[in-house]
Order: sequence, then C-alpha cells, then structure tokens
Amino acid sequence: MKKLINTADSVVEDALNGMVAAHPSLRLRDRVVYRAEGPRRGKVGVVSGGGSGHEPLHAGFVGHGMLDAACPGEIFTSPVPDQIMEATQAVDGGAGVLHIIKNYTGDVLNFEMAAELVEDVEVASVLVDDDVAVQDSLYTAGRRGTGATLFVEKIAGALAEEGAPLAEVAAVAREVDERSRSFGIALTSCTTPAAGKPLFDLPETDVELGIGIHGEPGRARVPMRPARELAALAAEAVHGDLPLRDDVLVMVNGMGGTPLMELYVVFAEVAAFVRGKGARVTRSLVGNYVTSLDMQGFSLSVCRLDDRLTRLWDAPVETPALRWGR
Amino acid sequence: MKKLINTADSVVEDALNGMVAAHPSLRLRDRVVYRAEGPRRGKVGVVSGGGSGHEPLHAGFVGHGMLDAACPGEIFTSPVPDQIMEATQAVDGGAGVLHIIKNYTGDVLNFEMAAELVEDVEVASVLVDDDVAVQDSLYTAGRRGTGATLFVEKIAGALAEEGAPLAEVAAVAREVDERSRSFGIALTSCTTPAAGKPLFDLPETDVELGIGIHGEPGRARVPMRPARELAALAAEAVHGDLPLRDDVLVMVNGMGGTPLMELYVVFAEVAAFVRGKGARVTRSLVGNYVTSLDMQGFSLSVCRLDDRLTRLWDAPVETPALRWGR
Repeated sequence: MKKLINTADSVVEDALNGMVAAHPSLRLRDRVVYRAEGPRRGKVGVVSGGGSGHEPLHAGFVGHGMLDAACPGEIFTSPVPDQIMEATQAVDGGAGVLHIIKNYTGDVLNFEMAAELVEDVEVASVLVDDDVAVQDSLYTAGRRGTGATLFVEKIAGALAEEGAPLAEVAAVAREVDERSRSFGIALTSCTTPAAGKPLFDLPETDVELGIGIHGEPGRARVPMRPARELAALAAEAVHGDLPLRDDVLVMVNGMGGTPLMELYVVFAEVAAFVRGKGARVTRSLVGNYVTSLDMQGFSLSVCRLDDRLTRLWDAPVETPALRWGR
Repeated sequence: MKKLINTADSVVEDALNGMVAAHPSLRLRDRVVYRAEGPRRGKVGVVSGGGSGHEPLHAGFVGHGMLDAACPGEIFTSPVPDQIMEATQAVDGGAGVLHIIKNYTGDVLNFEMAAELVEDVEVASVLVDDDVAVQDSLYTAGRRGTGATLFVEKIAGALAEEGAPLAEVAAVAREVDERSRSFGIALTSCTTPAAGKPLFDLPETDVELGIGIHGEPGRARVPMRPARELAALAAEAVHGDLPLRDDVLVMVNGMGGTPLMELYVVFAEVAAFVRGKGARVTRSLVGNYVTSLDMQGFSLSVCRLDDRLTRLWDAPVETPALRWGR
C-alpha cells in the first residue's frame, strides 16, 4: 500500500490542515470545520459529520447555502459527542440547529448524546438511510446512509439559508431522504491507512453489488461486466425500491479511485435507463463526492424532484466541493 | 484490470456522450466539445485539445471564461487535424482563434497542420511546456506540457472573454506558461483500456519522480516516503527551476486514482514549503484536474502571479470542472 500521508495516525488532522489552508472560507477549531464568517443571527444552523475517508463529504460541503459545520471523525469512525456538541453551540444563531446524520449506529448514538448535552439550543435531527442494498449491515440497524446525504445537505442548507424555521428545514431534509435512493458497486476494496491492506478481498474477475461506503458487504458478488450492465444493475435496484418517474436528480458518484472518464461512461448509461422508464434527468452530478478512500467503483443516487426541491437544489451554493449560482 | 467501460474502442465516445448528457452547457459535434451557446461575435475563440485520459482536461474546461472548444483525441493520442480545423472554424467570432497546445510532438504537428488548413481565420498558438522533470522525453522535444495547461486555459480564456484582441490573448497565454512550472510523482502506473495492464512496472516499495501524464519515465525511481518528503521533492524541483517568490498560485493535482484526502495532506506540506521560501500562496486548487487515467500520485504546478494575472484567475468561470464568481 502506498498513500500520500505522513503517518496513519496524523492523516485526518494533516488533511484538515491542508483543507483549511486551501480554502480561506473555512475555519478549523477543535476538529470541527466551520464557515469562516461564523453563524448568522436568525438562521438555522446545519451540522453534519461522520467518519473521515469519504472526502469531500462532509467538510467539503461547508459554506454558504449548505453546511455551517462538519464534524469529521477518525477514518471510518464516528465523531465524538464533544465535537458535535461544540459545533452545535458554535453555529447556533438563535434559530436552532439541524443535525444531518448518516444511519450508522455509532453516528446515531454520538449525535443523540451531543443533542442531549447541548444547552439552550433547539436541536432537530434527520437520519439519512438511502442505500437500498441491504436492510441491516455491519454497522447499521436499518438502511445505510450514503450518497443522498449530499442531497439532504444541499437542499436543507438552501432552505436554512433562506431563513426558514427549524421545523421546516428538518421537514425538507426528511422529505429529501424519503424521495432518495442509492446503490453502490465496488470494483476493488479500499485500504485504510491504519490497516495498510485491503479491507476485503475482491478477485480481479468480480465486482461487489451493493457495497457500503466502509467496505461493508453488499447483496452479491458477480462477475465483472460492461459499464452498461453495471449501470443497469444499480439503476434497477433503485427503481425497484422507488420507481423512477417525472423529474429526477441523478448523481453518479465515484468511490475515490475511479477516474472521471469512467463515471461519465456510467452516467450516459444511467441517463438512458432513466429515459427508458419514462422519467427525466433534470439535474445531475458526476464526480467523486461521497467516497470510500481509494476504492474503485461508483454509486448511483437519485432523488425524485418536484418544483420546490428543484428550486432549492438550484439555489446558490459556495463550498469547496459544490459551487454554483452565486 | 477492471474499468467502468463498455469496450476499449468506445470509451472516449461513451464518456463524451455522458459528459454532454450531464452538462447541458456543452455540445458535442464530430468529436469536438463546444459551448452550447456557440461563438460570440468579436470574441477571440480559445481552443485546446489533446489525447483523452486526462479528464477533466480539456472538455471539462469548456465554458464561459475558459475554452470555446476542446478536441479530444483517443486515449493518450493527439486529436486529428480535421477535428482541430473544424473546431477552429466553428468558434471563430471574427477576432481570430488561439490554439493552446501541450508540448507533445503529435499535438504540435496536428495543431500546426490544422492552422494551415483553416481558411479565413487568424490563428495564434501557444505551446505549454511547464514540466521541469525532463528536457526531452518519449513523445516530446523540449519540456512536456502538463498541469499548467489549466492555468493557461483559465487566464487566456478570461482575457478573451473580456474582449481583448488575439495578440494580447496569445501574449498572456505565453506569459502564464513562462511563469509556471510543474513536477509529478507517481505511486502507481496507469492502465489504458486497450492495453488492459499497467503501462510500466513500479514496485510496491518505490515511486517515480518526474512522471509524465502518459506514464513517461521521469528523473528517478526512489523508495516510497512520507507525504512531507514527496511534497518537498516536487516543490524543490519547481523552485530550483523558477524560484518561488511573492504571490504564487499552487495546484496540487491528483493523477486520477488518488483520493482527495491525500491531496489535501500534500497541499498542507507544499503550502508550508512555499511559506518557508518567503513566498505566499495567494490562490490554490486541490483536486483531480489533469489526470492520467487511474494513476495514483500527484503533480504540483505553480504560477508566479502578479496583480493582472490574479485578476484574470479570479474572473468568473463556468465550466463543468472549474466554476466560480458568476
């Protein structure tokens, strides 16, 4: 294993230092990434977080129109309650704070504990559980939270930026989660810096269908096949759970080690699939957004849009990893 | 080798189809990617191109404030003169067209031939040769053109957008090239879809210093070491050729298979190096911009800015891969 790191112990801190050095719009304090300008009076604060290794999620989505703070844990490890508590108190502008939590047992527990510890701040939370691959898994009761976390953060962040009250921001976050589904396919395992070897074995001939973002097993291991068929497998899994119709937002997301060229090949196939179901891809994202270290593969996330969600998706956003319209 | 492709023969076309499907601001015609809105009367057209496999370069930089058209060749293969000629004629708004050419023998020949074939369009060209690693190489007389191509495209594109005449746009493009240097380090080889196996062997213990973006050999093969030392090796190579001073634009660029987290680790070290030389990183980019298929590793590109170049760098840009300020 070769990685561009100094030591396995310092990798999260080193990367966060590089991130804030590269983006003057961010501040790092006690292992929390904030907007440099601080909270805005009367705006609902939006906080997310989770294990590191999924970059740019979450710190890359801190900024105008999206998150107020991100709490990165160690690699594939939940942030601690103290981090989340500090972030929550720091971003409160008097209108309360929304916690956006990916559905993993550790994250859920630590965000809950932080919400209890926090004083004089109204906290609401939304659980993201978009991954249709498995019902329960290694670290999860219920479905896992994966790519749609980005959709929730973007759309709830946009509504918060407009000055909507906490209950409305929480409600739209839940609505986005309910209207979103994801499914991932791995070509290779990922390698954590600490372990120094692949988390699991995947033969050169096979792919893992329904992979989790921490290398958790999926539904099945099948022989490698052309992009068209892999795209159809992912799209069928999503469509079978939530039929594609009307306007859909489609994200073809790389797992960290997959070149952009291949993601565009997959996107072309997914777009054809969606059209074949009589739906329309009205918004899209193609790139590495919710990754799993150096894993090769992709995940497909879709959200069934309506006019309001489309408007909030289009609203200005200015973060390191997502930026438009401002 | 596992890749998200349909066939090795169709990968460039499939990826381009996905790209224009994902980005309504682009149009694809006869293997050339254009801005959908077409040429603007009186504006200098800016055209680049080169082999595919370096995505998002070049088609990902087509849009307001940057390129008018990109001519993608097959993987690691120059575009043909017909493509370039068509692109040149199509984007001419009556003020002439600038060709931005990475310094590889095939690219240079084919752009030159296209410039000769084109009728009734004034053409100027700039050769990008920023890579300090080697003087001549497998496909190059003189230095190779790599990461700084992005700087040239952004800054020349901004000046063209402002309505400057061809001679001025060409002059600023040459100025950016002269003020820029790059150096790349590979942790792994890349694998072309057609070959199906790594282009070269690089043992698990070693890295290649001064790698080219087509896997061309660099200066030396040395044992793997921490990110801090690799960053210093790249920065020293650049600094030894063009001393870092005053304001610098720094890009830490992934070669395609390297996770963003690792690029931020490298950026932190490069920023410290630059400060140590008494210079200031006033602008930066961290991500996968000028890639080499699935290669793991990074390249460092720097440009010594002045006020004018900073203003042009900051000017609004709206392309699939680079977007700000509009």
